[in-house]
Amino acid sequence: MTAAVLANNLWVLLCGLFVFVMTIAVGLLEVGELGERVIQSLVKTILITGLAVLVMAVIGFNTAFAPTVGGIIGNPFYGPGLILGAFSPGIADSWWSVVVALHKMKLSAFAIYSVVYFVVIWALPAAWIWNPSGWLAKLGMVDFAGGLVVHGAAGAAGLGIVWQIWREEKASGRKTSEVVPYRVNAGWLTIAILLLWVGWFGFNPGSVLAFNDEAIVVVETTFIAAAAAMVSTSMTAYVLTKELFNPLYVVNGILMGLIVITPLAGFVSPGSALVLGLLCGPIFCYAERFVGRAKWMSDPVGLFPGHLAGGIFGVLMIAFFAQNQFATGSGFPTLPNGVLFGGGGAAVKQLGIEAMGIVVAVVAVFLISNLTVRVLAALMKGITTSHAYTGDAETLTGASEKIG
Amino acid sequence: MTAAVLANNLWVLLCGLFVFVMTIAVGLLEVGELGERVIQSLVKTILITGLAVLVMAVIGFNTAFAPTVGGIIGNPFYGPGLILGAFSPGIADSWWSVVVALHKMKLSAFAIYSVVYFVVIWALPAAWIWNPSGWLAKLGMVDFAGGLVVHGAAGAAGLGIVWQIWREEKASGRKTSEVVPYRVNAGWLTIAILLLWVGWFGFNPGSVLAFNDEAIVVVETTFIAAAAAMVSTSMTAYVLTKELFNPLYVVNGILMGLIVITPLAGFVSPGSALVLGLLCGPIFCYAERFVGRAKWMSDPVGLFPGHLAGGIFGVLMIAFFAQNQFATGSGFPTLPNGVLFGGGGAAVKQLGIEAMGIVVAVVAVFLISNLTVRVLAALMKGITTSHAYTGDAETLTGASEKIG
Amino acid sequence: MTAAVLANNLWVLLCGLFVFVMTIAVGLLEVGELGERVIQSLVKTILITGLAVLVMAVIGFNTAFAPTVGGIIGNPFYGPGLILGAFSPGIADSWWSVVVALHKMKLSAFAIYSVVYFVVIWALPAAWIWNPSGWLAKLGMVDFAGGLVVHGAAGAAGLGIVWQIWREEKASGRKTSEVVPYRVNAGWLTIAILLLWVGWFGFNPGSVLAFNDEAIVVVETTFIAAAAAMVSTSMTAYVLTKELFNPLYVVNGILMGLIVITPLAGFVSPGSALVLGLLCGPIFCYAERFVGRAKWMSDPVGLFPGHLAGGIFGVLMIAFFAQNQFATGSGFPTLPNGVLFGGGGAAVKQLGIEAMGIVVAVVAVFLISNLTVRVLAALMKGITTSHAYTGDAETLTGASEKIG
Repeated sequence: MTAAVLANNLWVLLCGLFVFVMTIAVGLLEVGELGERVIQSLVKTILITGLAVLVMAVIGFNTAFAPTVGGIIGNPFYGPGLILGAFSPGIADSWWSVVVALHKMKLSAFAIYSVVYFVVIWALPAAWIWNPSGWLAKLGMVDFAGGLVVHGAAGAAGLGIVWQIWREEKASGRKTSEVVPYRVNAGWLTIAILLLWVGWFGFNPGSVLAFNDEAIVVVETTFIAAAAAMVSTSMTAYVLTKELFNPLYVVNGILMGLIVITPLAGFVSPGSALVLGLLCGPIFCYAERFVGRAKWMSDPVGLFPGHLAGGIFGVLMIAFFAQNQFATGSGFPTLPNGVLFGGGGAAVKQLGIEAMGIVVAVVAVFLISNLTVRVLAALMKGITTSHAYTGDAETLTGASEKIG
Repeated sequence: MTAAVLANNLWVLLCGLFVFVMTIAVGLLEVGELGERVIQSLVKTILITGLAVLVMAVIGFNTAFAPTVGGIIGNPFYGPGLILGAFSPGIADSWWSVVVALHKMKLSAFAIYSVVYFVVIWALPAAWIWNPSGWLAKLGMVDFAGGLVVHGAAGAAGLGIVWQIWREEKASGRKTSEVVPYRVNAGWLTIAILLLWVGWFGFNPGSVLAFNDEAIVVVETTFIAAAAAMVSTSMTAYVLTKELFNPLYVVNGILMGLIVITPLAGFVSPGSALVLGLLCGPIFCYAERFVGRAKWMSDPVGLFPGHLAGGIFGVLMIAFFAQNQFATGSGFPTLPNGVLFGGGGAAVKQLGIEAMGIVVAVVAVFLISNLTVRVLAALMKGITTSHAYTGDAETLTGASEKIG
Repeated sequence: MTAAVLANNLWVLLCGLFVFVMTIAVGLLEVGELGERVIQSLVKTILITGLAVLVMAVIGFNTAFAPTVGGIIGNPFYGPGLILGAFSPGIADSWWSVVVALHKMKLSAFAIYSVVYFVVIWALPAAWIWNPSGWLAKLGMVDFAGGLVVHGAAGAAGLGIVWQIWREEKASGRKTSEVVPYRVNAGWLTIAILLLWVGWFGFNPGSVLAFNDEAIVVVETTFIAAAAAMVSTSMTAYVLTKELFNPLYVVNGILMGLIVITPLAGFVSPGSALVLGLLCGPIFCYAERFVGRAKWMSDPVGLFPGHLAGGIFGVLMIAFFAQNQFATGSGFPTLPNGVLFGGGGAAVKQLGIEAMGIVVAVVAVFLISNLTVRVLAALMKGITTSHAYTGDAETLTGASEKIG
């Protein structure tokens, strides 16, 4: 191998490992926000880690990245030559979609849903946008490290699950969906958000798929956006609540910055990343208020204001902040400059493509996700667990599922 | 340095660091399974980390890897040129052996035993099998990243300690060895098993001692075996107990897969790793039942069904699943194909060599370990601590040892 | 990029990430030593992580490393070309200074102080000693990875804060400064000290700013000093208290070894690192006793015996233990051998330069830090929080600050 090939392989492999660390962090983030009652969530965290590795290695990497059948989905039987690459993206996507369902979904339904998710639900947007033979990729749609493919799709898939859970809750006589109250555990919250930040070092810079000057710029854009969003979200929350540095807003600010920069981390300057980070505070706080009004919605960890709203916002910003000089370094030499950098008509056209892709992907993922859980609900008499919040951190109660 | 040398050095150094992370994870795994009573175990975790670095740097690396005296043990005074390599394998082995003893062994006995372990007990199998001048290595025995040298020997050494503890418990009037009941702490359990998985990224792929194509294959074999074993162990436990996804079996399944693949991760295909992982469930569950019958055995964290049984099973599987094409990439060009890949007579001969090496190493390590703790027991009136399970996670009670 | 440039960039970037991990570990160390009451400390940990990234990227890296104005401070408007390097040293320094203030300082005062710290307080010693155009650097002063620039200055800055807190406590009628009693939480303590150790892998070896043979030696000197200091501090504490392996001394020993080796890790042999580590025990234990006498001092986590005393001691030892052959590899080819290696008059002169630099930097940092908090105290009616120790780990009480 030449020096460049060695460095690229080492970079992608190490970044894959850092993304793997995110898996731990996502589960612990929930414990950090909701307290140590949520033992079942952690069992789910471990389970999907293993399932993602296995399913992606055997088939899921093919459905996403093998040459597509008509631009729609990768050939599932393409062959094992692609196995390697499976493990990092396989993990990357695995957990986002299911965070929302961690508390309320039966373990058995959760495990089966996860397999469908890896093979089909996640794979479709990936095959459409990231796979060079995908129909949206051919139209010119881009999404650097997954604002739509990972975060937006995760939010849409989660929405499909939450809707089904609400139907079951309504059928059992509830007027509003049960909401788990926050119970901050500062230790887990701290280690979770900082490990997520470490993981994003793999997630975004690793998405350059090479170790070059642009990979270093992506480290900068990712870290600066997160830091700026922390300040902006803390300050917006202070204006709205008069409470300074509530840890939930400090942490969700960092997370929102990381999500928003994800789809364009490889296309923008560090200065643009700073501006994008500063925009995150108002977007998160107002999206959270908007979502909080829905009686059918239970979203303890900010999946919709964060991953769905943030991911989509970031993808749209490509048409405003992209600069061809950075995009070229990360492998997208034909991406036009954004509106703010003189892109003109080409940038407006790019905005249309991105918006269209967002609508199609979000609707498709929502429908397939909802259909999947409805089938599961029919087969197993509902997907909602009967002991969602009763797990005791020091016993096994509620952590496994007794069947038959 | 050439590009290849730079990449190899960087790879081995980083993998060493990831193995270092395992140290944390092992201590936390025990807390995750037994609850926060076990504060003394964590003091021991920190202690052996430091002692391993120090002892291996000064002498232990020499006794394992310096040119041997008659194939038996490395020359302890070979010189400081070897210091560097010490830190990663020094850590790698350090903790496995002592997990079993964490609760019940006096801190002072534990610290002295650890020094003996690094200098002699661990070093013997390493000098015999990993050291090119070792007598088993010269017979053709191989053990890729330590199924016997690390895990099997750890189990045998632990058995030597447990036997002495049982003798002391019996002398004080007990009919069966006191067993610490499980008290799952999901947070620590999650972070422990996922950090162990991260550590194994260093442990197995780093054992190629180079960054080449085979190192990448070893990442795959390691991760796939762990994931497959998680599924297989969860499902076996479900069949046996009707309880789905008990976190202890989910976690022990991952661990079992990682242990079993260790001795052959660099010799097999990803497909074989999948098969080996699927075999782990029944082996772990039945080994655990078998071990659980012994009244003298206290093994809260699965050292014997996991490390001893899993390590030995993996070493034996070399003679069935090895493929010369993979072994060549990890530096063993003379290893014959296994029985399942047309190895024929050469594979059967390899099976005999591996089996003979297992018997000799396990017996030798058990005897030396037991002799060591008997001498310590004679010197300090027993090695069993009087406050094994009374540590309070928020105080110092039970965490240190008052002497004289 | 050539192979060497690729390897150097990859090394510095990865080491920067490991240093980032230290941020988590510092907050958790405090939780490990003082128990889960200190939720506000963790909010501060997350806050300074974000603020450090942001402030250093925008201006702080310039004030430290851009061409200086008269050798005193870097040109703050030098330009964004330096942004990249910001993130790792920006983090490296960020937290040390503020550990001491974590409990007792208002969140708002803390956040403003942090910005001043990154832009001016930390930047001055860095500009003087690490910046090639600094006035101390021109005199020949060296400080490899920051015994004075990071640790000594952090201690001096902390002293400036503690003094102001004591003035406020005295004004409110206290006779001695309130001391937070130790309440060890073994889980957090373990993960904290071992992640700190991982972070130091980035901190010291990364300070070579290249991946060469010397970087590998620095891994050895760093790890061996930590391990030796663990043994020496545990044993010194045992002699003084008759208590064997108190976890606080085991952990503080490792930390002391890491601090002391920091300023000379790139200048000494592994054997010298072993000796330096063994010297740490008595220095830490006696410095702790000396500091403990002061009625105005509240230092729950050993900032003064550790970072201030240890950092200064390490810097002075440069003049005794340095060897030109190692210093050349880490980029200091003109550093003379130390007294113990035949340095003679040149070594004595070096001792004088180091001592002079220590005095000037410690006094300057103390005065500016104290002036800063006095101004803040005047503006916001004191910097001491009213609820320092009342945070409940499972609620938000005490974790944020209600204003207006």
